[in-house]
Amino acid sequence: MITINEHYKKLQASYLFSDIAKRVAAHQQAHPDQRIIKLGIGDVTKPLPTACIEAFHQAVDEMGREESFRGYGPEQGYPFLRESIAKHDFQDRGATISADEIFVSDGAKCDTGNIQELFSTDIVVAIPDPVYPVYLDTNVMAGRTGTYENGRYSGVVYLESLRENNFIPALPATPVDLIYLCFPNNPTGSTISRAELQTWVDYARDNRALILFDAAYEAFIRDESLPKSIFELDGAEEVAIEFRSFSKSGGFTGTRCAYTVVPKACMAYDSSGKPQSLHDLWHRRHSTKFNGVSYPVQRAAEALYSANGKRQAKELIEYYLDNAALIRTAMTELGYACVGGDHSPYIWIEGRGDSWQFFDRLLQQAGVVCTPGAGFGKCGAGYIRLSAFNSRENVEEAMERIKQSFG
Amino acid sequence: MITINEHYKKLQASYLFSDIAKRVAAHQQAHPDQRIIKLGIGDVTKPLPTACIEAFHQAVDEMGREESFRGYGPEQGYPFLRESIAKHDFQDRGATISADEIFVSDGAKCDTGNIQELFSTDIVVAIPDPVYPVYLDTNVMAGRTGTYENGRYSGVVYLESLRENNFIPALPATPVDLIYLCFPNNPTGSTISRAELQTWVDYARDNRALILFDAAYEAFIRDESLPKSIFELDGAEEVAIEFRSFSKSGGFTGTRCAYTVVPKACMAYDSSGKPQSLHDLWHRRHSTKFNGVSYPVQRAAEALYSANGKRQAKELIEYYLDNAALIRTAMTELGYACVGGDHSPYIWIEGRGDSWQFFDRLLQQAGVVCTPGAGFGKCGAGYIRLSAFNSRENVEEAMERIKQSFG
Repeated sequence: MITINEHYKKLQASYLFSDIAKRVAAHQQAHPDQRIIKLGIGDVTKPLPTACIEAFHQAVDEMGREESFRGYGPEQGYPFLRESIAKHDFQDRGATISADEIFVSDGAKCDTGNIQELFSTDIVVAIPDPVYPVYLDTNVMAGRTGTYENGRYSGVVYLESLRENNFIPALPATPVDLIYLCFPNNPTGSTISRAELQTWVDYARDNRALILFDAAYEAFIRDESLPKSIFELDGAEEVAIEFRSFSKSGGFTGTRCAYTVVPKACMAYDSSGKPQSLHDLWHRRHSTKFNGVSYPVQRAAEALYSANGKRQAKELIEYYLDNAALIRTAMTELGYACVGGDHSPYIWIEGRGDSWQFFDRLLQQAGVVCTPGAGFGKCGAGYIRLSAFNSRENVEEAMERIKQSFG
Repeated sequence: MITINEHYKKLQASYLFSDIAKRVAAHQQAHPDQRIIKLGIGDVTKPLPTACIEAFHQAVDEMGREESFRGYGPEQGYPFLRESIAKHDFQDRGATISADEIFVSDGAKCDTGNIQELFSTDIVVAIPDPVYPVYLDTNVMAGRTGTYENGRYSGVVYLESLRENNFIPALPATPVDLIYLCFPNNPTGSTISRAELQTWVDYARDNRALILFDAAYEAFIRDESLPKSIFELDGAEEVAIEFRSFSKSGGFTGTRCAYTVVPKACMAYDSSGKPQSLHDLWHRRHSTKFNGVSYPVQRAAEALYSANGKRQAKELIEYYLDNAALIRTAMTELGYACVGGDHSPYIWIEGRGDSWQFFDRLLQQAGVVCTPGAGFGKCGAGYIRLSAFNSRENVEEAMERIKQSFG
């Protein structure tokens, strides 16, 4: 008899986005003439940079001619892209990451979801709360948690991010083996300083733990004193893996390209305590279960590192950051405590009730859709997330409406 | 302490392709003027069909304009592609598969590798020998096998495909829960009749087993009496999942698009014997660990179903099949027992010694590269695989050289 992976039964059905959709649809039906403005989802709205479009077309043409056609590429990505990444995103910032430590993929969601396969199922996992739900769900599926009760899975160490700790969790009080961190954070938009991040690296080194650092939003960091990569920190290459994405930095959410950095110095241990190269393990996983990213997509991603591509991508980011500033200013003026938005497309706003009440009020009084913080973890229960991914006009109008009905 | 998934240590280092590369390089160095012809790898060489290139360009243009830009798409693929697939690949052939049973992905390698996550680790898995190595390796990684000894993992039921059984394995003699089948087969090129495949479906129904049917090479089937999909068989929708790919049918090995069919009627069981929908489980897995295929790539794949796209893809297949016929005829005339090549791009050739001796002889005497059968399993030890994926000129010259030195 074919039996299922019973751990899937522990997963909580995610009603978040369907609940949102239902409430929005009901509101729209009751107010058919109102133009609802969506500041909920974390998806880009501006087109791909011209430099990417040009490179994309050129590579598609190559695929149409016998002499330049490309079949299977290297599973880890083409050297042209891996070398651009290593140089521009790391070496130019003083991080000694080499091209062969970069694994190009079709998404940071896949990579952050798949990476846990490399580890034993009996490790202790530390996961921020609130955070992007993929880290937790994929560990539930793999059997690293107990059952769900009162908003929490047993067996998981939750790293609570609250106003009290400035949305930077404290080091775990009990021993942990695997630590997920995400900065700039999704959903809070909070950032971490070099000194604070160094304490995590030091903790991992002292405890033979491993940090999975999700830097999908690094492009939004404007303050040069903040680390964009964990590999800018001393000793991180021995205890950290980093995830990056072109989704937000280049508008690639529908184009699909990302990468993961697994330094050759980074080790885990077998049951006898012998170090094992995580680079080799991920290479094996990548080669066995993945067949590389579409060649034209890799060329489009490479174009983000050209002079034009860099400038155009920076314009995209500035555009969204200007939106974010409008949102944060407006909500702060209305008396709400806000974090994020300065080095992040997300503004995390503390309500005066639960997240769903806040959601309903924004929808009913202003016709604006947000994401209720409860969808990101127990600690998000009193908050909402507003996203800067929309047109300037829509953001301005949304803030105007909120001011009028909430002011 | 962060500890690894120890099952990875059971994996055998795959030296196959690096061994081939080393021997080819040594031969080239000794014969610098010889043009080596590679009929080893299963990778297409002809450019993408014009219909795909046009659709690809058009979609890239859409991504460059604000009004037509697309961010995140549905994880399961856009309806335009899922509907085309359901209609042309299934409904038009009498298989009642609907669009929402199709999961579009970036590769059949990923899907055949990831699907095993849905199942308990203590099931018994049946895997053909010889076959594409991903099925076995991903089950080793997940801990469904014992250790490796004498060319075999303990705990696995190997389905032997040999000349004696016409390269169609017999039903397992001991109970199994999960069965991998691949027809037209990689590497043997053998096909399975409707009646033979029905015995597997009936076995699965009688034993509450599940069949994972890899139909990546179905486009090469010319005999209309052979099944292209397992869902053409009675009752298969309750006991089978099917994998398809545009890699070979449309030349997409470097463009990346594939799909998996999980019928809503297909069930596995929980430990209490209660049926569980595999469609729901795969949907959850797909939504949690995957973010959809690049939008322009999905448009390029959709174009394969247009009138022009169908004609152009058929021309590609015919081209490779004509190559295959040349290879099979030549090798048969030289007295070798061959299978495959009639409904497959692969010809499986029985040697008169071990596969590596045959490989060396072909390389040294004819300057032709094949794949030694031993790389696909213990039963491949006496065989080599020749691939039809090359230009007509190269195939003709390779056969001429082989005739002259082996004849």
